[in-house]
Amino acid sequence: MAAAAPPPPPTDTPELNMNNPEPHHLFTRIRLATSSDTPLIHKMIHQMAVFERLSDQCVATEQSLSATLFSPTNIPFQSFTVFLIEVSKLPFSPNFISPNFKPISKILNLEYPVNDPEEKVFKSLVGQENGDVYVAGFVLFFPNYSTFLAKPGFYIEDLFVRECYRRKGLGKMLLSAVAKQAVEMGFGRVEWVVLDWNINAIKFYEEMGANVMKEWRVCRLTGDALKGYADNG
Amino acid sequence: MAAAAPPPPPTDTPELNMNNPEPHHLFTRIRLATSSDTPLIHKMIHQMAVFERLSDQCVATEQSLSATLFSPTNIPFQSFTVFLIEVSKLPFSPNFISPNFKPISKILNLEYPVNDPEEKVFKSLVGQENGDVYVAGFVLFFPNYSTFLAKPGFYIEDLFVRECYRRKGLGKMLLSAVAKQAVEMGFGRVEWVVLDWNINAIKFYEEMGANVMKEWRVCRLTGDALKGYADNG
Repeated sequence: MAAAAPPPPPTDTPELNMNNPEPHHLFTRIRLATSSDTPLIHKMIHQMAVFERLSDQCVATEQSLSATLFSPTNIPFQSFTVFLIEVSKLPFSPNFISPNFKPISKILNLEYPVNDPEEKVFKSLVGQENGDVYVAGFVLFFPNYSTFLAKPGFYIEDLFVRECYRRKGLGKMLLSAVAKQAVEMGFGRVEWVVLDWNINAIKFYEEMGANVMKEWRVCRLTGDALKGYADNG
Repeated sequence: MAAAAPPPPPTDTPELNMNNPEPHHLFTRIRLATSSDTPLIHKMIHQMAVFERLSDQCVATEQSLSATLFSPTNIPFQSFTVFLIEVSKLPFSPNFISPNFKPISKILNLEYPVNDPEEKVFKSLVGQENGDVYVAGFVLFFPNYSTFLAKPGFYIEDLFVRECYRRKGLGKMLLSAVAKQAVEMGFGRVEWVVLDWNINAIKFYEEMGANVMKEWRVCRLTGDALKGYADNG
């Protein structure tokens, strides 16, 4: 997850900026992912694993992701849910239909245009739009529960923005979209975890209003240790 | 959560033990909770809040628990799920029917009988049994998701054993039941959190095969900070 930080120094030529003295519009849209988006979600999950230096732990395939994230019994917001954030140089069509979630659109004014080296790979596969649309990031979340509040909440498992789109507020937009959805559903909390050495991310989350709870540790039972419980009654 | 520890010194009179030189049988059963169990779950949640010195944060009512844990759309193991552990001095009826989960029974041989000061309050409200059945604890859990594994898992929100039944293996039985269910469903992980100063609990969890992940911190967005996202787009 990209933390809030100043924009990077310009990498484009001065000529380009002289030809375009106005800010560069980047149209963004957050929408619910569908099974058609699985190949791009799969690619971003593997990019995230590389970034976290945990590639060896990432065994997700397009098939296993599709079967677990987009099975017919999987109802958005009641189970595993993925928001994608898409970007385009042209406005998004207002006719895009999504039965479970009204897309959230926002226009960013950037000082410099984004140079996306993986444009062809991340071309959005859903919807008919005026111009080319690219997937820039995703957030995966699902309901959790607080017994003290007797209310559901959302737990965010992953928040990822592709490298060339970082430091432009897209991560904040994704997190805000989950928080807004939680409020609308009357939920009590949004929770996630962060690595304790990732001070930029911690600063970013605290600025967004989150408490970083210092005393709690995550316990995980997995692999052979978990399988050992199969026949233990 | 009670950690594995030696049994407490005897509090019963020597006469009682002389009259009962055989071990004391305690029949136990883990079953799915239903909405009828809400009053006892509610009482245990408040006992847990007192134990954790967080009573002021516990606003759960019987009504709010019932509405969120046992709504018609709430399918066990696909959403919020509660296992209860019950105890009885007589064997449980083999005729108990539970459509979604085969109850797990175990006979404990105790050196001393349990003196339950709240027997009347925690009399089980479900099922026709030979003798009196009491609710001794619960575990509340729900699916989570690992993108790296592309598999669901279970997250345990609460594990609670009533004070007079601690240090007899009931917590381990509840945790094992969740792990066993996870394996049967092909899930990849069981996770929960523990307070870093609770070294007895950490030792207990590690003995059960769990890894305590030292680098991760839980972030929580709640209360007014969460509500602030209602109108922020």
